[in-house]
Amino acid sequence: MAKNIALSHKSLLGLKNTSVEEINLILDTAVGMAEVMKRPVPRVPALNGKSIALLFYEPSTRTRTSFEMAAKMLSASTTSMTMSTSSTVKGETLIDTVKNIEVMGIDAIVIRHSASGAPVLVDENVKASVINAGDGANEHPSQGLLDIYTMREKKGALKGKKVVIVGDIAHSRVARSNIWGLIKLGAKVSVVAPPTLMPAEIEKMGVKASYDLDEEIRDADFINVLRIQLERQQKGLFPSIEEYIKLYGITAERLKKARSDVIILHPGPINRGVELSSEVADGPYNVILDQVTNGVAIRMAIFFLLLGGKKK
Amino acid sequence: MAKNIALSHKSLLGLKNTSVEEINLILDTAVGMAEVMKRPVPRVPALNGKSIALLFYEPSTRTRTSFEMAAKMLSASTTSMTMSTSSTVKGETLIDTVKNIEVMGIDAIVIRHSASGAPVLVDENVKASVINAGDGANEHPSQGLLDIYTMREKKGALKGKKVVIVGDIAHSRVARSNIWGLIKLGAKVSVVAPPTLMPAEIEKMGVKASYDLDEEIRDADFINVLRIQLERQQKGLFPSIEEYIKLYGITAERLKKARSDVIILHPGPINRGVELSSEVADGPYNVILDQVTNGVAIRMAIFFLLLGGKKK
Amino acid sequence: MAKNIALSHKSLLGLKNTSVEEINLILDTAVGMAEVMKRPVPRVPALNGKSIALLFYEPSTRTRTSFEMAAKMLSASTTSMTMSTSSTVKGETLIDTVKNIEVMGIDAIVIRHSASGAPVLVDENVKASVINAGDGANEHPSQGLLDIYTMREKKGALKGKKVVIVGDIAHSRVARSNIWGLIKLGAKVSVVAPPTLMPAEIEKMGVKASYDLDEEIRDADFINVLRIQLERQQKGLFPSIEEYIKLYGITAERLKKARSDVIILHPGPINRGVELSSEVADGPYNVILDQVTNGVAIRMAIFFLLLGGKKK
Repeated sequence: MAKNIALSHKSLLGLKNTSVEEINLILDTAVGMAEVMKRPVPRVPALNGKSIALLFYEPSTRTRTSFEMAAKMLSASTTSMTMSTSSTVKGETLIDTVKNIEVMGIDAIVIRHSASGAPVLVDENVKASVINAGDGANEHPSQGLLDIYTMREKKGALKGKKVVIVGDIAHSRVARSNIWGLIKLGAKVSVVAPPTLMPAEIEKMGVKASYDLDEEIRDADFINVLRIQLERQQKGLFPSIEEYIKLYGITAERLKKARSDVIILHPGPINRGVELSSEVADGPYNVILDQVTNGVAIRMAIFFLLLGGKKK
Repeated sequence: MAKNIALSHKSLLGLKNTSVEEINLILDTAVGMAEVMKRPVPRVPALNGKSIALLFYEPSTRTRTSFEMAAKMLSASTTSMTMSTSSTVKGETLIDTVKNIEVMGIDAIVIRHSASGAPVLVDENVKASVINAGDGANEHPSQGLLDIYTMREKKGALKGKKVVIVGDIAHSRVARSNIWGLIKLGAKVSVVAPPTLMPAEIEKMGVKASYDLDEEIRDADFINVLRIQLERQQKGLFPSIEEYIKLYGITAERLKKARSDVIILHPGPINRGVELSSEVADGPYNVILDQVTNGVAIRMAIFFLLLGGKKK
Repeated sequence: MAKNIALSHKSLLGLKNTSVEEINLILDTAVGMAEVMKRPVPRVPALNGKSIALLFYEPSTRTRTSFEMAAKMLSASTTSMTMSTSSTVKGETLIDTVKNIEVMGIDAIVIRHSASGAPVLVDENVKASVINAGDGANEHPSQGLLDIYTMREKKGALKGKKVVIVGDIAHSRVARSNIWGLIKLGAKVSVVAPPTLMPAEIEKMGVKASYDLDEEIRDADFINVLRIQLERQQKGLFPSIEEYIKLYGITAERLKKARSDVIILHPGPINRGVELSSEVADGPYNVILDQVTNGVAIRMAIFFLLLGGKKK
């Protein structure tokens, strides 16, 4: 695949099956979108008349709002469907739901679902574009892209850069999308997790698995800190919050062992005092709010590339 | 009433009190709206500056979204109010609620309510247009109209056509709106239900009541299959799902007894394997997705006829 | 502060710290906004491209919709975030939440929160404008302004006018915002409440505290009747609904003791038969629906003054 000027598929389901050229196309398009966001009137008519359904089977204010803002800046309209109640209660299948949504005049479906693979199933059954906003522990490609965009923005091309991903690797779709994207772009990736939260065959993805955070951050360019689901602790997957903090929490003290220009990312929302100490969360190391802004630009780029110029 | 060019009333409350001329006006207007939906930019400025409140006292993603899409395509803005929480909890009366909504600058109120007659009560107390999106077991006129539109689209004028409506007739506002509309347009209507779900005096509406589905579908042009509320079975209103399927379920096997060009409608969402076998639900007989698309066109026509060109 | 042509602060947090000039600027601007609302197409492009987040930590259909309508009429876009579920559940701090929202491209945050002072905390941590839509028992400035606007509309300048505020003064942010604003504008304010619902040092705000409603309404220009939270009665804060009605309920009988041109306000929703008899609620004395319409105009004025013409 030589110089791409469009994405090869109608949907963005994950970074595993997205080429380097496509990833770079999205990143480069997002640069222009970030410029649009800074205008006094941050609106372009690119997707005027397009309708986007936000179909969330898991609650999310943050990600839903980011997609919504991205759509509005491109003049697309959005329809939000929180699926905890309503049709799901009535026992409708996912495929019937999305087919019905599509024929109301929807051009793209942004879907978050607890089942890995749900977006692929949807994609196979509708003509509309499908954007995976997180499926189980599988992928969350727009999050992976916004993390990579932020890293590239701060330190240039990722080839040869070292990224440490720390936290609950086993259950993290953010980790998986980061790994697929980063490895394709030539970064070196280490993943650090408690043994109970490290997937058995993770090294097959091309990363190094480690249990020693202090060792790994020594030469890291970036530390991408995953959110801990505190409820997993009750299930016995890690011993105690105190021990987790001691071994895997990012504190100012621990960062003394890292390079002075190391950059800390976190997908939010932060458990302050757990994954990050408040000092780090508010400190100069982190780019968390940049990630949030960049998330809107990345989602604008995704919508634009999937829907722009396309006739229904 | 000769050639109508407008609806006689400010609201659409049901098909019982809507004239043949008005029904045809809505159906004909919807034809143009369906054309708008197929445009590359499916937007017209007809209702620019109009505000529509979607006031749902019963949850519904599907119907709410259909009204929302219809409004957007006409450039009206919508405000969604799911009333399970908020003001209802505070004990406000329905009339106070809608009067308050209206004076905020609302031009039309789309209301779904569990109480039959609620939309009439609202209509009497506000100057805004009121559109009944389902009131108890009474009416759901936009659903009736979209069913009729779809039948007319497939087989032309309904005069003399035979429509079999099967399912829980007693509790179905969809059945009632279909019957009022179809009878006015000269169709022959048979209703089929288990004895416990057949209203006592249904034949006074001008339909034939029957308990023999196989007999009725023999010469049917259309079978409109109602959704079964599975929770009614627990209340003893029908014996068992298995028996319901055997007597009233639409299967490919049963359809061998019908005409080869019979058309199956269903208001959705489908209980696959209950009202319709999956083979029928996905088969060539059904026009369920056409109904959904036509629903947007019908609702555009309703909004346009009630609000278009009107000064506040 | 001489002739103001702008508000001095980026946010509207309460009337306590809003000057007379600023209050009059908002009221005068709202007059023009009320004119916009009466146009056939009630839309102006003043805030085109601005994005407003409606961040409600307490449910409210009425106030949220009023802000939403105000934004739409000025061509701003809104994003609604009901925070009972989602991020709050995940343990994110309020400051992290609003910082994250802001950097998505949000220009103003309308916040309702059960904690007094929450909007001030937010204001100190974001560059966006913050509008307090009710914080605990502290303030609800847009409600205070719409009450004052309505009084001024009915009887001209408030200097020397007598306003009786009756009800649960202790827990009422509506009372507090009314008092701050009315006293600044030179009105005489009496507050009437059951002893258990009268704050200890209320007279320090410049009002008269009284337990005799009949005495106070004798020469009142306005009676602003607060909503009773019926659940407080169960907590023993007032003896019984019947006694409350007898002592503090506004009935046609009681109004015989008042001036014939007395005007009744109520922030809604009304508990009919408690704070107001149905006769009064539907009678010529009250301006409750005017208050609702004026609420949209006041919120348009607030948005316009805080966001209009401002570059990001």
